[in-house]
Amino acid sequence: MNSTGLQRYLDLRRSLVNRELDRILRGRKPAIIYGPLRHVLKSGGKRLRAVLVFLASDAVGGDPRRALPAAVAVECLHNFTLIHDDVMDASPVRRGRQTVHSRWNEAVAILAGDQLIALGFEALTGGPQEPPSRAVRVFTRAFIDVCDGQGLDIEFEGRGGVSMKAYMNMIDLKTARVIAAAAELGALFGGGSPPQVRALRRYGESLGLAFQIMDDLLDVVGTTKELGKKIGGDIARGKKTYLLVKAIEQTRGRDRALLSGLRPGSGPDRNLLRLVRGIYEKSGAVDAARREILRLTRGAKKTLAGFPPTRGKRLLMDFVDRLADRTA
Amino acid sequence: MNSTGLQRYLDLRRSLVNRELDRILRGRKPAIIYGPLRHVLKSGGKRLRAVLVFLASDAVGGDPRRALPAAVAVECLHNFTLIHDDVMDASPVRRGRQTVHSRWNEAVAILAGDQLIALGFEALTGGPQEPPSRAVRVFTRAFIDVCDGQGLDIEFEGRGGVSMKAYMNMIDLKTARVIAAAAELGALFGGGSPPQVRALRRYGESLGLAFQIMDDLLDVVGTTKELGKKIGGDIARGKKTYLLVKAIEQTRGRDRALLSGLRPGSGPDRNLLRLVRGIYEKSGAVDAARREILRLTRGAKKTLAGFPPTRGKRLLMDFVDRLADRTA
Repeated sequence: MNSTGLQRYLDLRRSLVNRELDRILRGRKPAIIYGPLRHVLKSGGKRLRAVLVFLASDAVGGDPRRALPAAVAVECLHNFTLIHDDVMDASPVRRGRQTVHSRWNEAVAILAGDQLIALGFEALTGGPQEPPSRAVRVFTRAFIDVCDGQGLDIEFEGRGGVSMKAYMNMIDLKTARVIAAAAELGALFGGGSPPQVRALRRYGESLGLAFQIMDDLLDVVGTTKELGKKIGGDIARGKKTYLLVKAIEQTRGRDRALLSGLRPGSGPDRNLLRLVRGIYEKSGAVDAARREILRLTRGAKKTLAGFPPTRGKRLLMDFVDRLADRTA
Repeated sequence: MNSTGLQRYLDLRRSLVNRELDRILRGRKPAIIYGPLRHVLKSGGKRLRAVLVFLASDAVGGDPRRALPAAVAVECLHNFTLIHDDVMDASPVRRGRQTVHSRWNEAVAILAGDQLIALGFEALTGGPQEPPSRAVRVFTRAFIDVCDGQGLDIEFEGRGGVSMKAYMNMIDLKTARVIAAAAELGALFGGGSPPQVRALRRYGESLGLAFQIMDDLLDVVGTTKELGKKIGGDIARGKKTYLLVKAIEQTRGRDRALLSGLRPGSGPDRNLLRLVRGIYEKSGAVDAARREILRLTRGAKKTLAGFPPTRGKRLLMDFVDRLADRTA
């Protein structure tokens, strides 16, 4: 029941955002920029961050039409990071389609990404109504944070030992802060009270951390079919994940040496993948990840305790469960 | 006399901006982002766009301290475009120093550029006072325009025929609109009246077009020593310039075929450079460029007709002459 209600909500809001993104790109030139942007924005992302803007706005009794600019802006910010991160990581495929730099070239991907974040600021501030006064700062802060997070992620690739604290700080910056900003912007555009705005920001941040650890976990326990991309990609690329950092903490000897030695370019060796996944299981890193997700999602729900029992609140609760139960 | 007054003003305002840029970057991590940004921002640009913010603010009687956030933001926007453009153009050197992507790598240059434009928005909006209500829109519009202009510039590289109208539209977007935004933001932050804001925007746009045509001209008639970079680089890279577009209009036969055939990778062939420069001279393209610069700079000065004869206005007039007479 609840899940059907949420699904309907997700579908409706997603098409609202997609229509607006279409409208924004319509008729723009030069083609070298807007062709690739249409390619990216029609590749059917889930628009979860944009939907969260609406959910937060609804939870404080806001008007969804008023929240649309913020929802679109957050989606622009998110897709900007995908385009540029894919260049930096040299990823050929995203959402089952060629990435911009592999279909066009790097110059096009850099420029299309730049334009997309610019369009995000335009969406946020260019509507008929002035945005709430803190909105641009919140959005800009998320932009700064996500860049810092990506910088840390790249720095970590070359390092053996990364502490759990450093890892959590990195995913907070790289993933959770944008999701926190989505919730905060929804609350701001919805006219929420300062305590409501703060609570929804905390909700987004806990949810965002859980979301990233889930992402890390799915790279180990998911299936290629569900994810639409190769399993074990993080391991093959030597990326620091919750599982890797935890397992290095929990192991000694040969296992630990093997994990500490994973680097970009370790390559997609099937035996290596099986070995690493085995260590993740037996070291308890997989269980630890599941527990951490549970702790964080419970935390996200608790931040909503002071909200009246509206449909908006119920959807925010269901949204947490949806993300925690996802298989892709 | 006037020139000394302007020079003193330029020096003072430039150090004000440089100190603020230092302060903004101080203590920030990760090093992978802020190391390269310190490298770029300490490479001693002329900060002309930032100075223009102050000049425009002064001309409407504004407080310079109030204009500082906009001056810094404009400088961030400009340097962001340099970092990313250098990656797209694969330029190894800028202002006599290695570019970010050649000293570090492309991923670092993409990320450092992203962070710099984010810091520009933070500078604009993060101060103790709210920015004037249109400021974020003006800044965002300049950001969008400069990306569109760079897109056109890249599209033009692969084309033989580009009309003068298309060329002027491209440099308007790529160069003049940021300079126009600098003047407009100065007027806004200085508390100028709507007619003053409009006049200063037109001033900046005319000046910006003249500035770019001057840049094109210096690539042909300047010297390596003055410019701090190789002369003839535009010709070697097959870039569309005012001179090339004009000379193609004015020539027929073999000369025209030669010019129309210039493409990226035509390479730094000394004979080719001499030949092309000869055609630019004898076709009248060099004279036409000089005339166009004169027309535009006169136009810029005329937009100031309605301003009271203050020191601010005089400096804006001198600023035009300075840019029109520059040799680097």
